[in-house]
Amino acid sequence: MIMSSYLKHDEWNIIEEGFHPEKSRDSESLFSIGNGHMGQRANFEEKYSGSTLQGHYIAGIYYPDKTRVGWWKNGYPEYFAKVINAPSWIGIDIKVDGDYLDLATCKILDFHRTLNMKQSVIEREFTVEMPSGIQVKVKSTRFLSIIDHELGLIRYSVTPVNKNANLEILPYIDADVENEDSNYGEKFWEKTDGSCYHHEAYIATKTKKLDFHICTGMLFDIFAGGNKLSTKAHLVEEDLLLGNRVLLNATAGEEIVVYKYAAVVTSLDYPAAELMQIARKKLQEANDRGFHAILNAHIGEWERKWEHSDIVIEGDVAAQQGIRFNILQLNHTYTGKDARLNIGPKGFTGEKYGGSTYWDTEAYCFPFFMATAGEEVAKNLLVYRYNHLQKAIENAEKLGFTNGAALYPMVTMNGEECHNEWEITFEEIHRNGAIAYAIYSYIRYTGNESYLAEKGLEVLMGIARFWAQRVNYSEAKKKYVMLGVTGPNEYENNSNNNWYSNTIASWCMEYATKAIEIVKKQNPSRYKEIVAKTSFDESKELAKWNDIIANMYYPYEENLKVFLQQEGYMDKEQILVKDLDPAQRPLNQKWSWDRILRSCFIKQADVLQGIYFFEDRFDLDTIRRNFEFYESRTVHESSLSPCVHSILAAKIGDIDKAYELYLRTARLDIDDYNKEVREGLHITSMAGTWLSIVEGFGGMRVKDGKVSFTPHIPKQWNAYSFRILFMGVALRVRVTHKEVLIYNEEGESIVIGVYGKEYTVNKGGSISVAPLA
Amino acid sequence: MIMSSYLKHDEWNIIEEGFHPEKSRDSESLFSIGNGHMGQRANFEEKYSGSTLQGHYIAGIYYPDKTRVGWWKNGYPEYFAKVINAPSWIGIDIKVDGDYLDLATCKILDFHRTLNMKQSVIEREFTVEMPSGIQVKVKSTRFLSIIDHELGLIRYSVTPVNKNANLEILPYIDADVENEDSNYGEKFWEKTDGSCYHHEAYIATKTKKLDFHICTGMLFDIFAGGNKLSTKAHLVEEDLLLGNRVLLNATAGEEIVVYKYAAVVTSLDYPAAELMQIARKKLQEANDRGFHAILNAHIGEWERKWEHSDIVIEGDVAAQQGIRFNILQLNHTYTGKDARLNIGPKGFTGEKYGGSTYWDTEAYCFPFFMATAGEEVAKNLLVYRYNHLQKAIENAEKLGFTNGAALYPMVTMNGEECHNEWEITFEEIHRNGAIAYAIYSYIRYTGNESYLAEKGLEVLMGIARFWAQRVNYSEAKKKYVMLGVTGPNEYENNSNNNWYSNTIASWCMEYATKAIEIVKKQNPSRYKEIVAKTSFDESKELAKWNDIIANMYYPYEENLKVFLQQEGYMDKEQILVKDLDPAQRPLNQKWSWDRILRSCFIKQADVLQGIYFFEDRFDLDTIRRNFEFYESRTVHESSLSPCVHSILAAKIGDIDKAYELYLRTARLDIDDYNKEVREGLHITSMAGTWLSIVEGFGGMRVKDGKVSFTPHIPKQWNAYSFRILFMGVALRVRVTHKEVLIYNEEGESIVIGVYGKEYTVNKGGSISVAPLA
Repeated sequence: MIMSSYLKHDEWNIIEEGFHPEKSRDSESLFSIGNGHMGQRANFEEKYSGSTLQGHYIAGIYYPDKTRVGWWKNGYPEYFAKVINAPSWIGIDIKVDGDYLDLATCKILDFHRTLNMKQSVIEREFTVEMPSGIQVKVKSTRFLSIIDHELGLIRYSVTPVNKNANLEILPYIDADVENEDSNYGEKFWEKTDGSCYHHEAYIATKTKKLDFHICTGMLFDIFAGGNKLSTKAHLVEEDLLLGNRVLLNATAGEEIVVYKYAAVVTSLDYPAAELMQIARKKLQEANDRGFHAILNAHIGEWERKWEHSDIVIEGDVAAQQGIRFNILQLNHTYTGKDARLNIGPKGFTGEKYGGSTYWDTEAYCFPFFMATAGEEVAKNLLVYRYNHLQKAIENAEKLGFTNGAALYPMVTMNGEECHNEWEITFEEIHRNGAIAYAIYSYIRYTGNESYLAEKGLEVLMGIARFWAQRVNYSEAKKKYVMLGVTGPNEYENNSNNNWYSNTIASWCMEYATKAIEIVKKQNPSRYKEIVAKTSFDESKELAKWNDIIANMYYPYEENLKVFLQQEGYMDKEQILVKDLDPAQRPLNQKWSWDRILRSCFIKQADVLQGIYFFEDRFDLDTIRRNFEFYESRTVHESSLSPCVHSILAAKIGDIDKAYELYLRTARLDIDDYNKEVREGLHITSMAGTWLSIVEGFGGMRVKDGKVSFTPHIPKQWNAYSFRILFMGVALRVRVTHKEVLIYNEEGESIVIGVYGKEYTVNKGGSISVAPLA
Repeated sequence: MIMSSYLKHDEWNIIEEGFHPEKSRDSESLFSIGNGHMGQRANFEEKYSGSTLQGHYIAGIYYPDKTRVGWWKNGYPEYFAKVINAPSWIGIDIKVDGDYLDLATCKILDFHRTLNMKQSVIEREFTVEMPSGIQVKVKSTRFLSIIDHELGLIRYSVTPVNKNANLEILPYIDADVENEDSNYGEKFWEKTDGSCYHHEAYIATKTKKLDFHICTGMLFDIFAGGNKLSTKAHLVEEDLLLGNRVLLNATAGEEIVVYKYAAVVTSLDYPAAELMQIARKKLQEANDRGFHAILNAHIGEWERKWEHSDIVIEGDVAAQQGIRFNILQLNHTYTGKDARLNIGPKGFTGEKYGGSTYWDTEAYCFPFFMATAGEEVAKNLLVYRYNHLQKAIENAEKLGFTNGAALYPMVTMNGEECHNEWEITFEEIHRNGAIAYAIYSYIRYTGNESYLAEKGLEVLMGIARFWAQRVNYSEAKKKYVMLGVTGPNEYENNSNNNWYSNTIASWCMEYATKAIEIVKKQNPSRYKEIVAKTSFDESKELAKWNDIIANMYYPYEENLKVFLQQEGYMDKEQILVKDLDPAQRPLNQKWSWDRILRSCFIKQADVLQGIYFFEDRFDLDTIRRNFEFYESRTVHESSLSPCVHSILAAKIGDIDKAYELYLRTARLDIDDYNKEVREGLHITSMAGTWLSIVEGFGGMRVKDGKVSFTPHIPKQWNAYSFRILFMGVALRVRVTHKEVLIYNEEGESIVIGVYGKEYTVNKGGSISVAPLA
């Protein structure tokens, strides 16, 4: 395992000892915090003139930036949605005897930064020597409340160490912010209002397009020696920066403490005109409660979150730290309270991928939130897509489809497509399948078939209709074919008869057919309603679907007896990854795009993704043959790749391989494998890490309303345990080399499977099973 | 034929009667003039506040603009070259009694505009009524000297018709110009110097990148009643606009004439520091010669050009006008004097396609210039590519090729690739073949084999080496395959085993092999030199090429016995163009890109392009079968498409079809078939029109050092004639329904073929042959 030299291994903390300015952007990503409503990169409160990517992002607020294309192609979306850097709430500038406290220019005597994962609190402590020779110690503690999502709090203290000092302290809010990735430095916000008071400031801004309004407010207190100061503050009212300048003398050894309360409220939740007064009320209430009371409540809520979602790994601190970091950041990104929100591939930790929703949500994140946050949270993720169904239909119409066919976007904020590469936007259509699969997965896991009548069936029908039009009958093959697609393996574009896409397309039509039967039987009046609403021609459309299902073409390699990723794959020069010169990797940085496209190398293996989704269709030999063929050709240059391979490796009993693949995902960001953590974290792939343990090593499967496990344990670990919510029961699974222990922590008695046998685990009880040799 | 309502049919002129403001940009394109060194859209001299695309372009001067891409892909070029709108030399603002003369705001009493094609002169004549009620008549005459390429001249006269008038006349030059297609309004020029004198002004500017320097100068005289006025002029010295303001009183009926001489000189031809003084000297000399003397010399030179290149069509004014317009604009764009220059798809008539060089030059324009402008001009087009060979090798290296493999760019200014769509830049590699083919074509036509040793062989070897690496051996097929290409039919991307690309690749290796034999035999010392320079491993590399030539895979449709455009083409739903709803056309405006890609419809037929290039390999039945199969599926949405189809239709004797296809190309711009003439003219496809007549109807072919003809005449015409230069002989071919007359206008006796028989045409003599029934 590559170990990053600059972060310490610790079970519950991410720790930087000593300041690493060359890693400043990496650290800003890694020490990010969030609470579902907003997120904040680990930018410093005080001025910092070194390299930095300022980032404060608010869920659901985006900017439809002008698309950048060389040559316009019909069907391209008009805009590219960007998550935008919102007005800054963290700023506290410090001057000591007239000199700025700035870690890029001061002499650093010590520096210590911790992301306390248990509490979701970021702490910094450092001592610097100013140009004047005075030494100053700073401590900062920052969190975004997981209870009141609109609050961010900071405790920031300055202590002159060796002399008395004149301090100038400027807590502020600043709307003069921009995105690094904006075109020609374009700015996205404009100020609509602003007020500055004694120890308070509020700025109301709106986005230049789409009219998202927000108000960013701050209120602060200053304490010296435990006493609140009432020093007169000078109001600072620049155009876009509002704050208070406080001047005071601090004696050597005296800690001056600033408690800064910030509120970020938006027109997604309140009338725009009331935002300023709502923010002020919120901050005054927060101030009444006090910093420590709010922090304690926050810590308590995180304790509950960890109870539900923690995975404990014994005997491997690096692995333990890795999985906790992933779980923490997933919970920073999405809390499931608001069906308008979703999970961006970089969450709130960077600009890239625009904070938008990808198929990552359904294919990777959905099981994590369903098993740890519960059915309602999972359902909100489904409802998100249901609410976008009309837009998906319009998206398909734009491409020439008719009759209510729905094509969900590859990348979206509000249901509209906003990605502008034809090979992705128009062709990476397998995403539609993942959206249907999440509905299937939800119902399989929760047993809640009534969701089909409620919302699911309409989505499934729109998707099935899309596939029925997207294939065509080949007179040459006497089969239905699907031309011009990009599979999950984005190292092939515009290929024909991609096995995964053909497989999931056909499955979608099968499942939609089954869902129709269920709704028709369980809720005939609702079925009639849906038929009317969608102008569904049952007999004709079902006949068409069934004809396609029965006559779909699936490329197959007869000699090797493997499913063929796409037609023509065997025409490529067949080289294995093990024979690739390591200097050539990662291919996506070393090779030109055409060379990648022509090569046999795979970014993430389509066929294995399909086998993972539809495992029950294949015997173990088939899985093994395909795994061996594709794993040996896969370079795993998608962060989403190793987890599925790891799960399948565990499935075929190759635990060493599973472990090797697990390692590629678990500490991807902490150890910065892809040399890009400065841009933000790989949030959605973090769910894949969770899957690698729970479905991979733990072997959890759900079938016929029952959950089962086939646990394995890597030899490198002493034990691991995880917890899942299933049908109202909370099960904790602990696996050691000697036994598999399953506790029923909450809920009624339940029958579960372990290694193919059934056991009843009573309420509050547990079972112990000997592990496989 | 669709007839544009607003332009008159005329054999020698493009005529607009009455002003059509809604067509103002169309007219600006259509009335464009040029002289190889520079070109000018038909923007007005006087202020015009209506819709306009200002365009003055200078050959070889471009701007490496920031590429616009959604997601960067390795191998993409760093910039996108743009032809840039250069400082304006045409401006003459007029105020009449204080009101601006502006065709967008004045009442227009009459308006008449002519592009005199015989003389390459644009004339306007109009009368307007000013807000004050005064009527003013204006006449302007403008040309870009075809003799002294750096000069542009204007005669501009104003006559108050019904009253005396106070005139304010402001001839100026203006460097405050921009491109419409620049990113966020970015400007490309900066001023380095400027001087303003009595009746003179000079502005020196440089491009913000690449440091192209130019000087734009003007000098003018004003005459009243035939007398030169010496009225004191007020110098106008704004930052980027320099000129003279002349105030005078004109009595009713008195014509005030401005003669404006402009010079545009560049650092491509002179030291940057001397440009101002060179421009001034040039203008003073021009002024000494006088407007009319320069105009007469210009007209005389155009007379010679027409003698060499004119095609006369009798009995069809529209066709006559169409072909002359095409020949004129080709001659506006390229004069062949400078091997650094080439032919952009829009010449100097618009911003689109960036004035860059495409494969259009070799595939379409080359034969026109070779046959009408002569061997030296054609050779300069070859030398252009020879001079870019090192850049083509670097371009291939960037994509991972080695050993001196050369990939010529899809789009270039200086030899570097500057197109940024992967499916074109990386995959539309057949362009390499056209560059080799032009060398072959030149030698076939001129007999000048020594060019191979001189320059050609190095290019051919670089290209052959590219193909040898670009194919790979398919174990599945036991053949060499070429994966991931885009053929000339750009309605397919990233396809495998494109028949045309495989065919031309193999041919390139064959021809390179043959060229090696020739040079080895004719010039062994030069051959040794080339072998050393290119580290050519003769036996190994030739063996490899020959293995590929012998074992290349060519997709073939067994049932229909046609060459298959690419693998999998027959899996598409097979629909014919005749069954397409006309409301769906043009597809590129009505259909999304993915729908186009998945459909069987063809932009221009690859296979037919290949058959056109290698006609001798195929019997007439094969040509007919392929023509019928592909023509019925081709939508001709490339301006380069119909000419090749027309030539093949003539070849198989389907003259009606050939004529129908000819019509699509001949008046493409004049009648604005593609609804985009406002963006500029389709210069390179104009050469295709010439080919349709000479190689299509005329049936001209060159083989074994002899030229032959198989003339046909469309029933719609009474006669047509064209002239070609061939091996030092100028032949005029005149075809009527009764005879084929071939004159030997210049040069020694020559043996030529007509309808498969040989005839000797003596110096100054002619032969007459009865046409085919």
